[in-house]
Amino acid sequence: MLFNKIAIIGVGLIGGSLARALRANNQCRTISGYGRSRENLDKAIALGVIDDYSDDMGAVVKDADLVLLATPLASFAPLLEKIKPYVNDKLIITDAGSEKGSVVEAARKIIGDKIKQFVPGHPIAGTEKSGVEASFKELYEDHLVILTPLPENKPEQVKSVSTMWESCGARVVNLDVEYHDKVLAATSHLPHVLAYALVDCLSSMEEEGDVFKFSAGGFRDLTRIAASNPEMWSDICLANKYHLLQLIDRYSSHLDKIKELIVTDDGKGLSQLFSKVRNTRENLK
Amino acid sequence: MLFNKIAIIGVGLIGGSLARALRANNQCRTISGYGRSRENLDKAIALGVIDDYSDDMGAVVKDADLVLLATPLASFAPLLEKIKPYVNDKLIITDAGSEKGSVVEAARKIIGDKIKQFVPGHPIAGTEKSGVEASFKELYEDHLVILTPLPENKPEQVKSVSTMWESCGARVVNLDVEYHDKVLAATSHLPHVLAYALVDCLSSMEEEGDVFKFSAGGFRDLTRIAASNPEMWSDICLANKYHLLQLIDRYSSHLDKIKELIVTDDGKGLSQLFSKVRNTRENLK
Repeated sequence: MLFNKIAIIGVGLIGGSLARALRANNQCRTISGYGRSRENLDKAIALGVIDDYSDDMGAVVKDADLVLLATPLASFAPLLEKIKPYVNDKLIITDAGSEKGSVVEAARKIIGDKIKQFVPGHPIAGTEKSGVEASFKELYEDHLVILTPLPENKPEQVKSVSTMWESCGARVVNLDVEYHDKVLAATSHLPHVLAYALVDCLSSMEEEGDVFKFSAGGFRDLTRIAASNPEMWSDICLANKYHLLQLIDRYSSHLDKIKELIVTDDGKGLSQLFSKVRNTRENLK
Repeated sequence: MLFNKIAIIGVGLIGGSLARALRANNQCRTISGYGRSRENLDKAIALGVIDDYSDDMGAVVKDADLVLLATPLASFAPLLEKIKPYVNDKLIITDAGSEKGSVVEAARKIIGDKIKQFVPGHPIAGTEKSGVEASFKELYEDHLVILTPLPENKPEQVKSVSTMWESCGARVVNLDVEYHDKVLAATSHLPHVLAYALVDCLSSMEEEGDVFKFSAGGFRDLTRIAASNPEMWSDICLANKYHLLQLIDRYSSHLDKIKELIVTDDGKGLSQLFSKVRNTRENLK
């Protein structure tokens, strides 16, 4: 058994799925929860995801081996303030935030030299659903979890966090904070913004009637992520602003390239570009 | 049985799936094929999708009750030229093109007053795969087929085409040509362009290494359509140029709106916009 007790701050899709997986694999004796919604926490107990919860952060974190932050990014700073008084020398702090630069910066300011016990993480898994009812123990199986260990981290604490995710079936890779944020802006944050913009654009076409009813599977696949948690994604966009804005501009220039090929009736150019893209996309399988 | 013989011009995903469905439901005695690739046509015979094929359009179309054009749009004009000499008074011509305005315009020019026998159609179904091997008889089940009947069409010929698609499990709706092209630009053509641009953008990030390996399910869902047939999509972009370019600009303004909210750190505005989009997207189910 990896842990005697862990504390999950934010018992939703991400936190709840970790709890379920650890429990199913018998890797943790007790799981305590903390969150904004008593209704959600009651559900989490009823579903057997956590053992108990409290409004008192001390009670939740006390005696825990590990605390996971799995709430929207903007809540990390106030939550770290609340956790800080209860950080003993053994407690490992980790998180599941989709951006790492601003998280690490805030953590350094708030918890000071206890930053050595903070191992930043990001499971590349999720669905467009939110809340503990959406959680399931297989969420991390065959998925990637990125850790961005800090120079101050103790290797054995990084190893504990790795082992925890691996016990849930995930593959763990370690990346640099900056590289993580740049790459995830491209593969995750930008695509979400594009999907949100697409649905927003089509919603505005009222004069054309309900255009959505003529959409097919491709459109539904493409816009599924536009049903993701709005607060979480608003926080991600702002936290990773620097890289995301660069990527939106970069994307726009690629869209302009296609537009130019259409404007100039360059069928050969379009066909070549689409072929190149198809090859790239097919190699992802 | 609806037809004694039909001719399928382009025995790929779309044409092949129609042939399979008609055959499975015993709605057609003989199916003849025509196409560029002898290899694909031989496969179509081996798979039992068509009965025969020929390089001679006369042999393929002769005695047919209906001919379906299911090739990339740019080939429609030369193919209609070839079909024209064999159009007797009973033959119904239909197509599966994703754009209708330029198709109808070309058909009017080429086949003259036989336009009354041309019933334009567009099945809203497909996958990112191409070729007869990708075809399957269930493709149209519970999918929409849009017909854009012309003022000259005989009602009974429109009805025959409707009944054909309905026999494959599709729901048929009739729309105006212009409205079809505007709506499909929004729900299908624009999304394909956006997905192509996204994969193209990420491919260009060589200095960052292979960013694709950090992509998750959402990205794969979103870019699946970027593996679609390049020639077909090049043709669609050019054929529906007028509406598509307007929509790319309209989309860009919605993307700019999100960008502006990020630039101004307007978390509340982002969260509101994403919530509105989520509600819209969830109502699509």
